[in-house]
Amino acid sequence: MDLKQLDAFAKEIIIEAGKRICASFSYDLEVEVETKSSPNDLVTNIDRETEMFFIEQIYQFDPTHKILGEEGMGEHPDSMDGVVWIIDPIDGTMNFVKQHRHFMITIGIYIDGVGKLGYIYDVMREDMFYAIAGEGAWYNDSPLRKLQPLTIEEAVIGINASWVTPNRKINHEKLIDLIHTVRGTRSYGSAAMEIAFVVSGKLDAYISMRLAPWDIGGGIIIAKEVGAIATNLNGQAPDLSGSDTFLIANPYIHQLILEHYIEEK
Amino acid sequence: MDLKQLDAFAKEIIIEAGKRICASFSYDLEVEVETKSSPNDLVTNIDRETEMFFIEQIYQFDPTHKILGEEGMGEHPDSMDGVVWIIDPIDGTMNFVKQHRHFMITIGIYIDGVGKLGYIYDVMREDMFYAIAGEGAWYNDSPLRKLQPLTIEEAVIGINASWVTPNRKINHEKLIDLIHTVRGTRSYGSAAMEIAFVVSGKLDAYISMRLAPWDIGGGIIIAKEVGAIATNLNGQAPDLSGSDTFLIANPYIHQLILEHYIEEK
Repeated sequence: MDLKQLDAFAKEIIIEAGKRICASFSYDLEVEVETKSSPNDLVTNIDRETEMFFIEQIYQFDPTHKILGEEGMGEHPDSMDGVVWIIDPIDGTMNFVKQHRHFMITIGIYIDGVGKLGYIYDVMREDMFYAIAGEGAWYNDSPLRKLQPLTIEEAVIGINASWVTPNRKINHEKLIDLIHTVRGTRSYGSAAMEIAFVVSGKLDAYISMRLAPWDIGGGIIIAKEVGAIATNLNGQAPDLSGSDTFLIANPYIHQLILEHYIEEK
Repeated sequence: MDLKQLDAFAKEIIIEAGKRICASFSYDLEVEVETKSSPNDLVTNIDRETEMFFIEQIYQFDPTHKILGEEGMGEHPDSMDGVVWIIDPIDGTMNFVKQHRHFMITIGIYIDGVGKLGYIYDVMREDMFYAIAGEGAWYNDSPLRKLQPLTIEEAVIGINASWVTPNRKINHEKLIDLIHTVRGTRSYGSAAMEIAFVVSGKLDAYISMRLAPWDIGGGIIIAKEVGAIATNLNGQAPDLSGSDTFLIANPYIHQLILEHYIEEK
């Protein structure tokens, strides 16, 4: 498998998909939305069309490649053998519908279960965060640096406000300690955007109680190249076969957050 | 006073200031920061230089104009008589230093205490949200529409996670009810950015326990033109002579939030 060739192809179709999404906007656009499972989880036609575009392009490129996508338009692969693309055509669907910004295309390409190429593409900014396993990570044309040492008090972390309120999944009192310790918190409504911010040092950690493989499949490959540590909240590698908890952080604070501030119920 | 001429001048110096800020970035830039009152409140040289740029340009344009700026580089006006510029040269200083994005230049121009021209400029995106009192509001070249009806369950609101944890300023239990009622929450670390998002329908409300006049002086003028309602948490016009609490919201949910979810201590 020629990774450079695969990388060039992946970037080409991501950028093309981004252009198609942009073209679908207009000032008075009212995206037709349908509710999937909750109002928090909007799916749009553009989301599905974008996934179909990826599937067609990838099968044309190599029909042996397998595709695991959020919208489930392709056949779900029964194993990670061979080349598997894990695709979220639009991460941050509500931002997409309501804000026309802050949504990402994110893709991870795995060969026999090993992450090889990772992409997070900010469609409206035309900003690409990406990595080639073992060769490094980039933000557009600039190499991303290894994450630098910092203390927990200097950290800015991505976390949704609901996790610091009483809930069934996690001890919110400990998370309250965390947000009172760090310098600041942010919440953007797109897991891939928050992961992209961590790998580029714009955030120092991001915590979520429940992410799907397509939310993180690209990001965790980039993470590795910059030294960010990505695990579930038990400290294990995130489970790519189903939904899981998630913590990605600067390596100098990952263990501290896990040990001192995370207690699952 | 020719508002159109003043508007053209204000836009010109805002865009020029934005260019100067961008020019100061480079990949390896390490902005020299000094701590003002807390690590949350970083001040940079560029912040002060930008305010000085505005002061020089405005005095050259008309030496009778008065300037109230965050950095306090100009003389503090002793009244709102005449033409007063309320300026925040960089709102979202931590974003500026750490993220190199998500910071705003925001300016409000008041004549005899009445808001006439308001600007929020996303420097890195080169996006201008602005208004001319009585004539409307714009996002770059597109008019901003009046905010449309929506229910509280459909709303996405900007709020910092710390306000839904026990604190001395506000009943956090009621805010927990609020965040469990709405569709989602966001937090961007720049008051002006969150206000810009509310006036353009990208968020439906934004709540803060403490903002200064320069954080909101431009935004509340834009708010009026799109029908957004901006008050302090007592429902009164925000106090531009000092720090105050703040709620800006879509007019269809402002009163509801104030009555059902806000209880100051």
